[in-house]
Amino acid sequence: MPLGERIGDKSESRYCGVETDFDDDMPNLLYRNISAGGFDFVVSTLMDPSYRPSLVQKDGSKSIALPFTGSDLVLSPSQWSGHVVGKISSWIDLDSEDEKLRADSEITLKQEIAWASHLSLQACLLPVPKGTKCGNYARCVNQILQSLNNMQLWLRIPLEKADEDDASGGKSEMCGLADSWELWNSFRCFCEHHSQLSIALEILSSLPSENSLGRWFGEPVKAAIIHTDSFLTNARGYPCLSKRHQRLVTSFFNYSVQIILSGKRGQSSRHSGTSIDQSDGLQRHPLKSYLDYVGYLYQKMDPLSEQERFEIGYRDFLQSPLQPLMDNLEAQTYETFEKDTIKYTQYRTAISKALIDWVPDEKASLLTTVLMVVGAGRGPLVRAALEAADETERKLKVYAVEKNPNAVVTLHSLVKLEGWQNVVTIISSDMRCWDAPEKADILVSELLGSFGDNELSPECLDGAQRFLKDDGISIPSMYTSFIQPVTASKLYNDVKAHKDLLHFETAYVVKLHKVARLAPSQPVFTFTHPEFSPGNTNDRSKKLQFEIPTDTGSAIVHGFAGYFDAVLYKDVHLGIEPSMHTPNMFSWFPIFFPLRMPLIIPPGSRLEVHFWRCCSPSKVWYEWCVASPSASPIHNSNGRSYWVGL
Amino acid sequence: MPLGERIGDKSESRYCGVETDFDDDMPNLLYRNISAGGFDFVVSTLMDPSYRPSLVQKDGSKSIALPFTGSDLVLSPSQWSGHVVGKISSWIDLDSEDEKLRADSEITLKQEIAWASHLSLQACLLPVPKGTKCGNYARCVNQILQSLNNMQLWLRIPLEKADEDDASGGKSEMCGLADSWELWNSFRCFCEHHSQLSIALEILSSLPSENSLGRWFGEPVKAAIIHTDSFLTNARGYPCLSKRHQRLVTSFFNYSVQIILSGKRGQSSRHSGTSIDQSDGLQRHPLKSYLDYVGYLYQKMDPLSEQERFEIGYRDFLQSPLQPLMDNLEAQTYETFEKDTIKYTQYRTAISKALIDWVPDEKASLLTTVLMVVGAGRGPLVRAALEAADETERKLKVYAVEKNPNAVVTLHSLVKLEGWQNVVTIISSDMRCWDAPEKADILVSELLGSFGDNELSPECLDGAQRFLKDDGISIPSMYTSFIQPVTASKLYNDVKAHKDLLHFETAYVVKLHKVARLAPSQPVFTFTHPEFSPGNTNDRSKKLQFEIPTDTGSAIVHGFAGYFDAVLYKDVHLGIEPSMHTPNMFSWFPIFFPLRMPLIIPPGSRLEVHFWRCCSPSKVWYEWCVASPSASPIHNSNGRSYWVGL
Repeated sequence: MPLGERIGDKSESRYCGVETDFDDDMPNLLYRNISAGGFDFVVSTLMDPSYRPSLVQKDGSKSIALPFTGSDLVLSPSQWSGHVVGKISSWIDLDSEDEKLRADSEITLKQEIAWASHLSLQACLLPVPKGTKCGNYARCVNQILQSLNNMQLWLRIPLEKADEDDASGGKSEMCGLADSWELWNSFRCFCEHHSQLSIALEILSSLPSENSLGRWFGEPVKAAIIHTDSFLTNARGYPCLSKRHQRLVTSFFNYSVQIILSGKRGQSSRHSGTSIDQSDGLQRHPLKSYLDYVGYLYQKMDPLSEQERFEIGYRDFLQSPLQPLMDNLEAQTYETFEKDTIKYTQYRTAISKALIDWVPDEKASLLTTVLMVVGAGRGPLVRAALEAADETERKLKVYAVEKNPNAVVTLHSLVKLEGWQNVVTIISSDMRCWDAPEKADILVSELLGSFGDNELSPECLDGAQRFLKDDGISIPSMYTSFIQPVTASKLYNDVKAHKDLLHFETAYVVKLHKVARLAPSQPVFTFTHPEFSPGNTNDRSKKLQFEIPTDTGSAIVHGFAGYFDAVLYKDVHLGIEPSMHTPNMFSWFPIFFPLRMPLIIPPGSRLEVHFWRCCSPSKVWYEWCVASPSASPIHNSNGRSYWVGL
Repeated sequence: MPLGERIGDKSESRYCGVETDFDDDMPNLLYRNISAGGFDFVVSTLMDPSYRPSLVQKDGSKSIALPFTGSDLVLSPSQWSGHVVGKISSWIDLDSEDEKLRADSEITLKQEIAWASHLSLQACLLPVPKGTKCGNYARCVNQILQSLNNMQLWLRIPLEKADEDDASGGKSEMCGLADSWELWNSFRCFCEHHSQLSIALEILSSLPSENSLGRWFGEPVKAAIIHTDSFLTNARGYPCLSKRHQRLVTSFFNYSVQIILSGKRGQSSRHSGTSIDQSDGLQRHPLKSYLDYVGYLYQKMDPLSEQERFEIGYRDFLQSPLQPLMDNLEAQTYETFEKDTIKYTQYRTAISKALIDWVPDEKASLLTTVLMVVGAGRGPLVRAALEAADETERKLKVYAVEKNPNAVVTLHSLVKLEGWQNVVTIISSDMRCWDAPEKADILVSELLGSFGDNELSPECLDGAQRFLKDDGISIPSMYTSFIQPVTASKLYNDVKAHKDLLHFETAYVVKLHKVARLAPSQPVFTFTHPEFSPGNTNDRSKKLQFEIPTDTGSAIVHGFAGYFDAVLYKDVHLGIEPSMHTPNMFSWFPIFFPLRMPLIIPPGSRLEVHFWRCCSPSKVWYEWCVASPSASPIHNSNGRSYWVGL
């Protein structure tokens, strides 16, 4: 039964499994561990561990049944698929020097996976590669993956990374398994990032550094196997985990990673197998107290906030960015954005401050400030401006300029409803070609995309500043885009699934969740408004260098997470850059720029990246590439795949 | 006019060019350098070097003609395209910190290339990137390449590599332009190995090591620019080159690289521009003596051998390997192979030695040896066997087994024509299912492909050895495949041009020419015949480690060149592995296994490679991958792209 109930959390991580030995009697195994034991699934060897293909006498005429746990009929189809993860025989070693062992291993692996597929199991657990080489193992798994049904293959990988004091760490050849991430990385590169190949991370009693750990959250970790040896015993003799382990398990819950308990017996029981609970004579599962502890950790998590519950369905789901200039937004989109009260509060504050600066108190009743909202939509910024005028007791004349005729309909009815007719003039026009009857003191706009300038705010405001006074104020007055390199297996695979260049050269709006942020974000392009200097261009070229912390170890970069931060007016800002994200604002998810080929960064290497913003008479686009540690192709040349129409 | 005539050599390298300054008077420039000077083409700046877009007054209403060398009408179209290579202004610097210079550079580059395209020039020479960074330059060139007509862009790259005594060389950050190959490599990676981007290599007075030089022969080097400063002066006061430079220039001729001479004046002339020849008062080109010297180097090359003239048309041309088991060969194919006398001489020698060992002299007239030729084709091996019998005075009974019914027709007429009816029995059957009436003493076959076992010799001989005596002899008795990593830009681009996975996972037969062999070849798979041990399998798995010499510097691997060597009998071998290639044998070109992504090998790195030979009941295939320095995808999983039918 699930570890607990958490409103809004429908993830797999509510289910906890247990690793078991081979048992001929599968129904009994299920009874002991699930019905009686309280686990949700078992991870169980399906084939007699003593089996070796080369020991079976070859007799062409006689058919031999493989030594599996009885027939497929011993459990119902839903029991097999719902409660059993197949554990591939751990003796197999496909990279052994022993040719016979290698051959036996290949045959057994294929037989076991074929059987598990036949049973429609959801997943099989592949044993840890022996040693540091896995080429032949990966070749064989890769062959299997080419024609596998929906089953997942979970490669068991111990979570370990030797600390290297040596600053040149990693450049010297690895001795032994210094960093198990590298082993995983080789294996999945051999298998070409196959989406059915994922990880069962084996948690040991000591944990690597936080930076090193962090990498795994961008990887397809489906399960975490915690051995009873990794538990501590609390004062009352019950199992518990260290603080760091607890935080890690909580992270697993947040990242939909299932916990699997492993180990022969509880520390408090005296013999292996099941133990008899003294009080009622019933069999008590030897790992029951461990399961209870994991359930306790699940239940003590904070409940999901309203914003999290709203966003949970969007996690790691790629969306094409809006093109509000070329396309007209729909009512539903306006509806969503208008609910973001935080955003409009920031605008109101910024406008208030600007009004106070623009009109001294003593002239408040004399002067009327001309404020133009360009891109007024259905009116939220008009409302914010009027509220700011009220608040500061300044007199305002508002022009609401909007190019979407559908939104203009709503604007008109809003003005009528609110009785703003004397203050607000509605202009149904594109701001770039409107012939304004007078100049504005304050120009208010909200044309920002997730990457700041990506919805062409610079081009629109270049058009609109024609009717701003030379000393007029633009709100926002400045905005900057940011990027940071990320590991994001899921996003990479979703882009790759399209099997074309176009999707690899497109930026996506996405609620980033299962990603590893490998270095702090850095500013990319900045635009300031108004910008009256001659020869001004909105082309930009930027070179960035990221330092991945050395204790991270090697890492893989699937692309770049992009954000923006905008200065509305003076100290009033608005943005989604993680370190200064405006709290509780949900109008923008980050943007994601993929790389066509995931890039491996050796430990302590510098990552050098170029970003360009290019403009032509009809469109604006970005190009990007990696220059170091090795040069990537330049993405999206001439905006061939992704561009924003003017 | 061409440097000389060399029978069979139709390559571009017969033509020599000269780099000139900007000249308003293009017809005169051509007259001085080509008609009078003897060069074949000029490399000439097309636009006034003092032009800067930002200095041109902007006046929307007035059209301004760009400062090009007159109109397109000053030369005929064939003069433009046949005799002029456009030289892009060398002042441009797209990676400058100076934003205005960057903008001017981008505009000028685009204008000049547009003009050169308009003139249908064959090529433009792009200036050397300034400094060690070229991201923005490459971005701009890459944009141009996306919609360029047939024109080539030659990136000028100085041929230089600092020697690094330090064994860890290259791991430390490059200071300055330590290895110009790295600059080229970044540039072309940014431009995604575009086939219209090639190299004009600038030869300096000192040359890097041979290994470092060797890399360039796998790259798209189209021209070599030799400055007069790199010449020496001989005892009689004429220009000449050092021995190493001479060898390099000869290599350029062999690799179809055009020479371009550059420099203000000859060392013997006293002023720049043209000089007056004292004897006849005619203008003599200041670089005439240099041109004569280059012509002298061309003319003193050895003439092409007959084999080279035969092979020249096949150079670097990808062919699909034969499938002689699934398909029947055509008469033309038999015809070509039968002309390879060396091959049959080796077979005759091997059979003679085997006959002498099998039948002692004293029994020569008593014993009749049963020799079976499996895969007899149109009979050349039958003939070799009979010649060996004559030579050794042994008595022979020959079975000629052939599955191709068309070849059997020719076999019958050959036997009749030669009067071999009493000695040769023709069997029209696949050797794998023939029910032989007696067992053979000697089994002779030639079922080898470029990679040894790739035409399924092992599987065929497994079938045929049923009718070989237990102590019988197989000719060949053993064969081994070999691979070595190569740089092969041309092959890579030809494979890439298909735009699919299939062609990247196929092995090709190809006369390798423009390739750089990065390390000596190593053995891969070995098969011995007969092979009576039980449980024998033709599956193979091999891990190879190549050491690229440290003085090579960084290198790029586009794939692997494959070869074979076969032991026919005892010391008689046959093969195409370069270090022991059977002389004058032309039946086999090497095989080429491509990599889907070219792999950059840092200096002094080890390259670890896996190769597998996999068998199923219906087909045999190879899989391959790189494991180090970084894991590549496993190529051709399950033989999905390339396989040989059984």
